[in-house]
Amino acid sequence: MAAPTTRIPAERLRRQLALVFDAWGMPEEQARAVIDVMVETDLRGVDSHGVSMLPLYDRLRREGKVVAAPDVKVVREAPVTALLDAGHGLGHYPAVKGMSIAIEKAKANGMAAVGVFNSNHYGPAGYYALMAAAAGLIGMSFTNVWNSAVVPTRSKVPMFGTNPIAFAAPAGRNPPFCLDMATSTVAIGKMRVAYLNEKPIPPGWAMDADGNPLTDAKAAFETRLLTPLGGLAEMSSHKGYGLGAMVEILCAMLTGAWYAPTKAKKAPDQSMFNIGHFFFAIDPTAFRDPGDFESDLDGMLDALRGAEPADPDKPVLVHGDPERANHADRSANGIPMPPALLDEVRDVARLNNVAFVLDGNA
Amino acid sequence: MAAPTTRIPAERLRRQLALVFDAWGMPEEQARAVIDVMVETDLRGVDSHGVSMLPLYDRLRREGKVVAAPDVKVVREAPVTALLDAGHGLGHYPAVKGMSIAIEKAKANGMAAVGVFNSNHYGPAGYYALMAAAAGLIGMSFTNVWNSAVVPTRSKVPMFGTNPIAFAAPAGRNPPFCLDMATSTVAIGKMRVAYLNEKPIPPGWAMDADGNPLTDAKAAFETRLLTPLGGLAEMSSHKGYGLGAMVEILCAMLTGAWYAPTKAKKAPDQSMFNIGHFFFAIDPTAFRDPGDFESDLDGMLDALRGAEPADPDKPVLVHGDPERANHADRSANGIPMPPALLDEVRDVARLNNVAFVLDGNA
Repeated sequence: MAAPTTRIPAERLRRQLALVFDAWGMPEEQARAVIDVMVETDLRGVDSHGVSMLPLYDRLRREGKVVAAPDVKVVREAPVTALLDAGHGLGHYPAVKGMSIAIEKAKANGMAAVGVFNSNHYGPAGYYALMAAAAGLIGMSFTNVWNSAVVPTRSKVPMFGTNPIAFAAPAGRNPPFCLDMATSTVAIGKMRVAYLNEKPIPPGWAMDADGNPLTDAKAAFETRLLTPLGGLAEMSSHKGYGLGAMVEILCAMLTGAWYAPTKAKKAPDQSMFNIGHFFFAIDPTAFRDPGDFESDLDGMLDALRGAEPADPDKPVLVHGDPERANHADRSANGIPMPPALLDEVRDVARLNNVAFVLDGNA
Repeated sequence: MAAPTTRIPAERLRRQLALVFDAWGMPEEQARAVIDVMVETDLRGVDSHGVSMLPLYDRLRREGKVVAAPDVKVVREAPVTALLDAGHGLGHYPAVKGMSIAIEKAKANGMAAVGVFNSNHYGPAGYYALMAAAAGLIGMSFTNVWNSAVVPTRSKVPMFGTNPIAFAAPAGRNPPFCLDMATSTVAIGKMRVAYLNEKPIPPGWAMDADGNPLTDAKAAFETRLLTPLGGLAEMSSHKGYGLGAMVEILCAMLTGAWYAPTKAKKAPDQSMFNIGHFFFAIDPTAFRDPGDFESDLDGMLDALRGAEPADPDKPVLVHGDPERANHADRSANGIPMPPALLDEVRDVARLNNVAFVLDGNA
């Protein structure tokens, strides 16, 4: 019988992460940003992008591929644009800094766009879009990805990462709308869940090496060839492919980050990653009288939640609803951490010579 | 046997449209913009959004739902934002004007965003994104839609139009990248083609009135309940649903246009439409040295076109390729117009007391 999943209070998780990043030598301001993003991500139930990434981050840091105390600096700036060099550290802090600058500039000028390069994994795209919504602005957040997994329509080789798009907007009576989606049909984690449950996957989630749809979940998990949103060509996978390309253009070409398939040619001697992020912030009062945007969005959100469901037991949801339900539950009852993840974090603590503080229940 | 499809030279089509819009009393500058968009759309092979819309536009004009000579004016303006009131005319002219303002502001400031309200159908979203690319900028173009056809995940009633997203970017050696996609899985026209060819449609293109997938093309065409990109819930249709909502928020809530499901409550006595468009323009030189963005994009486009295809006879395409092939063919050989469409345009000419000039072959 598998050991039970432990519930860890958010505060204890923060303490564990602080111990590790302090051992790395990460400056306190940077560590606070990374911890804020990671713990909030786990509270929202986006388990693939929170503390579960720590073992990988720590390995990359030990391999010299992630800089623990990077010099994150603005290298270009104008009234409504800025470009940040992330100095090859984790992506969270430069992303928080980038979106903060976008918010400040948008409040002064109506809208703004900020790019980041020389970065790494930044957690969930939605976190940064929600920063803008919390400030009363529309926020958009994009990132490219260091490993290619998504196979363009008609091809049989992966040419993009899961290149996510996030979009958040503040409402009035309602909590903010927040779309946070990979531009692949599903994430690789879904293959693993299907495989562990001995279930086939629907044709259109993943491809074999010849470009044909796979239904064997184990093979799909091992092959790691995802489809663009849409799935199959006849289901308009060229649209997901195009959205992934759009994200790559904003995050790599526009910031000076690398496009994975041309990296070997462009920077043959560089062992670091150079991932890019891109952010927009828009002030609704540049277009509407104060309150009108939020009240019209309330009207849409109410209409969607009230739309007749196909199954009366499954009401229509709005983007952001499932994460808010998780946040309420996990803030009260702790963040579920499976035994295997606890073991991995215990290893990270040991390797960094810091205490492991996640023992025992909440 | 069906009558053959006639090829009409673009110039002759321009003349026909000019006769009709002149009879409407449309100011010449406005007519030129509408004609530019419509004919370019047909040249690019986007047959659903070019001259085939004329009969509907003319009916709406006769019903008093489209103003022939609207007062299109900027009602809010700041250095990087503007909002235009389209005065209830066709959407093409205010969209051209809106994107032109965005381009001008982005060239001066690095980026800009412009909204339009009180508008109507504006043709293909991609036209306006390509205006920015032609000026050396990244362009994005969005519109909401007057008739709801897309059923959100879990629901059985339509809550959005096909709310398109277009994104164009200038390359160096290569022609521009141009994604132009509805956020539904497919357009209604695909059901019609399947039905006329007596073929079933794949599950996930359309729903029945209970929210179940339809495979009968005729029933799907008549029911007109489209799925969001993704198709079925297990294929991540919530992502297409979220993209449609994003487009609605930018185009309706941010501009003051109407969201169709709440229109009756918001503007019960108004018989006009109030559609919104939204445009971004971004100058790559706000982020990169001149030429670097374009050359990096060339690298990506070359890599994609060179990516190994699943079927050697079907090379991997980049967004914009099929439309360019159509443009070359149709510029040389004329725009194919089926007999039924020619009949409809003949009726429009008759109703407007102008000559029908599309008789005979190219």
